[in-house]
Amino acid sequence: MTTPTTTSYSGVIPPVVTPLTTDGELDAPSLERVVGHLLDAGVSGLFALGSSGETAYLTPAQQDEVIKVITSVAAGQVPVLVGAIETTTNRAIERARAAAGLGADAVVATAPFYTRTHPPEIDRHFRDIAAAVDLPLLAYDVPVCVHSKLDPELLLPLAADGVLAGVKDSSGDDGSFRRLAIGARAFPGFSVLTGHELVVDAMMLSGADGSVPGLGNVDPHGYVRLHQAAVRGDWAAAKAEQDRLVGLFDIVTAAASGTASATAAGLGAFKTALMLRGVIATNVMSPPMRRLDAAETVVIAAYLDRAGLSRV
Amino acid sequence: MTTPTTTSYSGVIPPVVTPLTTDGELDAPSLERVVGHLLDAGVSGLFALGSSGETAYLTPAQQDEVIKVITSVAAGQVPVLVGAIETTTNRAIERARAAAGLGADAVVATAPFYTRTHPPEIDRHFRDIAAAVDLPLLAYDVPVCVHSKLDPELLLPLAADGVLAGVKDSSGDDGSFRRLAIGARAFPGFSVLTGHELVVDAMMLSGADGSVPGLGNVDPHGYVRLHQAAVRGDWAAAKAEQDRLVGLFDIVTAAASGTASATAAGLGAFKTALMLRGVIATNVMSPPMRRLDAAETVVIAAYLDRAGLSRV
Amino acid sequence: MTTPTTTSYSGVIPPVVTPLTTDGELDAPSLERVVGHLLDAGVSGLFALGSSGETAYLTPAQQDEVIKVITSVAAGQVPVLVGAIETTTNRAIERARAAAGLGADAVVATAPFYTRTHPPEIDRHFRDIAAAVDLPLLAYDVPVCVHSKLDPELLLPLAADGVLAGVKDSSGDDGSFRRLAIGARAFPGFSVLTGHELVVDAMMLSGADGSVPGLGNVDPHGYVRLHQAAVRGDWAAAKAEQDRLVGLFDIVTAAASGTASATAAGLGAFKTALMLRGVIATNVMSPPMRRLDAAETVVIAAYLDRAGLSRV
Amino acid sequence: MTTPTTTSYSGVIPPVVTPLTTDGELDAPSLERVVGHLLDAGVSGLFALGSSGETAYLTPAQQDEVIKVITSVAAGQVPVLVGAIETTTNRAIERARAAAGLGADAVVATAPFYTRTHPPEIDRHFRDIAAAVDLPLLAYDVPVCVHSKLDPELLLPLAADGVLAGVKDSSGDDGSFRRLAIGARAFPGFSVLTGHELVVDAMMLSGADGSVPGLGNVDPHGYVRLHQAAVRGDWAAAKAEQDRLVGLFDIVTAAASGTASATAAGLGAFKTALMLRGVIATNVMSPPMRRLDAAETVVIAAYLDRAGLSRV
Repeated sequence: MTTPTTTSYSGVIPPVVTPLTTDGELDAPSLERVVGHLLDAGVSGLFALGSSGETAYLTPAQQDEVIKVITSVAAGQVPVLVGAIETTTNRAIERARAAAGLGADAVVATAPFYTRTHPPEIDRHFRDIAAAVDLPLLAYDVPVCVHSKLDPELLLPLAADGVLAGVKDSSGDDGSFRRLAIGARAFPGFSVLTGHELVVDAMMLSGADGSVPGLGNVDPHGYVRLHQAAVRGDWAAAKAEQDRLVGLFDIVTAAASGTASATAAGLGAFKTALMLRGVIATNVMSPPMRRLDAAETVVIAAYLDRAGLSRV
Repeated sequence: MTTPTTTSYSGVIPPVVTPLTTDGELDAPSLERVVGHLLDAGVSGLFALGSSGETAYLTPAQQDEVIKVITSVAAGQVPVLVGAIETTTNRAIERARAAAGLGADAVVATAPFYTRTHPPEIDRHFRDIAAAVDLPLLAYDVPVCVHSKLDPELLLPLAADGVLAGVKDSSGDDGSFRRLAIGARAFPGFSVLTGHELVVDAMMLSGADGSVPGLGNVDPHGYVRLHQAAVRGDWAAAKAEQDRLVGLFDIVTAAASGTASATAAGLGAFKTALMLRGVIATNVMSPPMRRLDAAETVVIAAYLDRAGLSRV
Repeated sequence: MTTPTTTSYSGVIPPVVTPLTTDGELDAPSLERVVGHLLDAGVSGLFALGSSGETAYLTPAQQDEVIKVITSVAAGQVPVLVGAIETTTNRAIERARAAAGLGADAVVATAPFYTRTHPPEIDRHFRDIAAAVDLPLLAYDVPVCVHSKLDPELLLPLAADGVLAGVKDSSGDDGSFRRLAIGARAFPGFSVLTGHELVVDAMMLSGADGSVPGLGNVDPHGYVRLHQAAVRGDWAAAKAEQDRLVGLFDIVTAAASGTASATAAGLGAFKTALMLRGVIATNVMSPPMRRLDAAETVVIAAYLDRAGLSRV
Repeated sequence: MTTPTTTSYSGVIPPVVTPLTTDGELDAPSLERVVGHLLDAGVSGLFALGSSGETAYLTPAQQDEVIKVITSVAAGQVPVLVGAIETTTNRAIERARAAAGLGADAVVATAPFYTRTHPPEIDRHFRDIAAAVDLPLLAYDVPVCVHSKLDPELLLPLAADGVLAGVKDSSGDDGSFRRLAIGARAFPGFSVLTGHELVVDAMMLSGADGSVPGLGNVDPHGYVRLHQAAVRGDWAAAKAEQDRLVGLFDIVTAAASGTASATAAGLGAFKTALMLRGVIATNVMSPPMRRLDAAETVVIAAYLDRAGLSRV
């Protein structure tokens, strides 16, 4: 981290998409441009290898390449959080150590998945990862992917014990999030970040320190304005910005009904928008996802125009 | 309804609990006091026979009694919305007609449940109910109970066609709620109400017209203050009130771990708090739920004190 | 029951469909013919007001009419089990008492639904119903509808205490079913019935006493032959019969993709097949379900022919 | 494979457990003894790196070691199927290629997980893996882990196109399994294997070619006897053997209630039983799972005795 006196994270920390070439390999120049695009907008951190970064689709070697590019471009200007998202503890530790060796400023891990687990194991999972890597660790609460919810009753003791430096909440459980945010006030270094890109204003009002919006790849300036408005208490401005971004989010509906998975439709729309904005070269997706086609791209272009975003 | 020129609902509309006697029958005097307690606090409507009213536990005859008491005490001061929460269309219509005959001002229905349904059937379900009863109809989105989610894509056409007068959202899907609230601006008479008692401030910021908080039975004054602060744009005050209410919500954790269902622990806590506050006579629950015991009541009393609520 | 010396149920006990007239009311003459059709085939019981009987779609008055017709035609030849399938205890008791008053031989109840419950409440639910009605009580394990699973650990103590006379298992959890069947050997009067119409032979091998096949409305003779083969240990014959019935079950795929709910497609196919076989007058479904159309009926006719079933 | 003229698999193919040393590394000598124990019992194949092999807990390097040991001991006596169980296509291909390079005879892959997918992507997933590796590919249907079900409508076209050589079904959906088994008769080289160790007899009656029972690690002789009885049509003997094995399966209940996850309790019991039987050195589990303790081991010993299994 650039500011060693604190472990807290705030502001807008987009989960960086992973551009691919037409043969499915990492498109490093495009990724460099994505990072530059985000830094120019004033984001306060970068989350590499999150769900929006197609982390579950990249081999370990590809993941290493992604980390190298992002940390190289970030160059200490903002902290780089890196996902170590693996089924279980030893595998997550292996990826966390790789991230540490490649310049990550913090590590982000989910609960174990694929296997059937329970809270005491999830607790040990985070403790073992934190003990194995000399970097701040954030928990990623994403039950839609891992099918376990991280309750405040699990997270707050880990905050109290210094195991966790924060949480990225993509649970969609706003009541739980509120209870977490209130409980976390006792631990000033513990960051509470929301991944709910459609209600960042509302979650900031609930006590979030910042956001990790996938849509922030497409319009980082909007999310930075939203964050700043919320921080200065101008909730009307924050709401107006959020409402505009909700309209922009309609790009995820561009995929023809039933022809794309939720992931392919959503991440595919982000990539297509970035392509239209001139930031990345292609909207290629990792297999088995398909890329959005020309007709769908036209739809997305219209949504960008409606939201007032420039295109090339 | 007090304002016949519009069908819109706003403000705080608590889902009224159903007090029982020690032999399990409706405790009408206690229910009268609950309604008075809520009206005194300035609520703008009453929701009878919602989930918090143990609607799923009451026989049709008991439900009729509840409606009679509530409409009688309300006496037109505020609209009384009545749940017609049944597995399928004809059964819901039967209950909706009963409610209409007993003075309800509006009817509230969920998607079909028990059976496996899908969106076209849910659409027809609401259309058939609306056609059968000459009262405004609100949809109740409560997937935790009915295991279907009511998406904006389903609800907004029903708003456009005048089938629905509003929605009570207890889905916990805040992104969907935001999209619904934005879409509903096109239909001024359509009310968007949140059932998420822990984030009413945040959902008001997202565009809710009002709230249907179960905890509002216990502290209606707090929710009314919260609503008024949000309406005047004093989000700091709204947030402070909400945070206090989140603390009060800890009463639902009083039941000894593993010994009560989520429903028994939650509704049981509301009833116990109302008993402690002198509003109702007992905290008896419908079978097969158990009532909270003396030790659990002591815990709830402490939470009431912490939240600054008076007790008898 | 016709044989008061035992409370056990075995053989084929179809969940009787509920024929409707074109205006959506009970078609009593058609229902009488369904019962005759089943009795002629040699079924050993009838299950009225199960899921296949559209129980969740019928008002209490309609349910009463169904019971009257079925018990009247059965006339003591075989026991009539009647569903008292309601959200919670008091409501189920009300329906169970109505069934008892109308000549039911046994009552069938699920776990509570709509509300969030847990095993101790489910245990009390069955005990309260059994105590309230002077008829044998069977548990209906149908998690796809009620979202709670009835484990052997819950059911076997209820068998031991004489609360339950049996279970209809539609859980799809074949391992749990096997453990239940083995455990139930300790309670000779306790009947273990499978609702899995596609694997009745396999569940008989696992220890079932009989079956409650929805498809048995369409081809009761086939299920009776299957049962008899299994009982005499001719598993090759049982398997051959079951395989043919699996082919017949393809009628549930006749509904055009995406145009009918799973329930409408499945029960609609049973009704359409019975109409084609000359047993019932229409294939009308309860709202909000649609009935299958002419093109879908042609598909079903072809499947009936393929399975060797006569048509009118 | 030992019989290159066919790609079909049948008989008992246990998912081999992965013994660990007290410091959490692969215990190769113990694994060698497990394989010997299974071969001595007459199993007809070995499934390495399945769920029971703690595949989700092992790093790629550890997985490689497991494959080496198992293929080395198997030495062509029976085919070794190796799991390439990874979140998405490219990652699964990487593991499939590693397995091929280390002597695997076939590869086993699940649907994508962690990410939200849908049937067309799952179809492409299997096609891409099959195209990338010159080994037979089997699908592993395990919705409890990956949260997607592999329907016959998805699998049978893949069988028809020669993409899949078989399926291991751990879905618990016995009706789907029956439809798959019947449909698969059109593709003689396609193997239908059940992972439901409690109802292997019933699934053999339904048409399974063989089984992949986790409990087969503990009592492979029993499962081989069960298979042989079923193949010769002696269903009474098959059932008796299965019933005994259901009793043995009670070892998974030895873990004190609430103190172990389902995975830790189940796999931990298998390992503890193998330790008690003198096959492996420790019952150490991969983190974050705990190992069963001395008291739990005593319970398991009693179940082994009851099932008539020898101990050291």
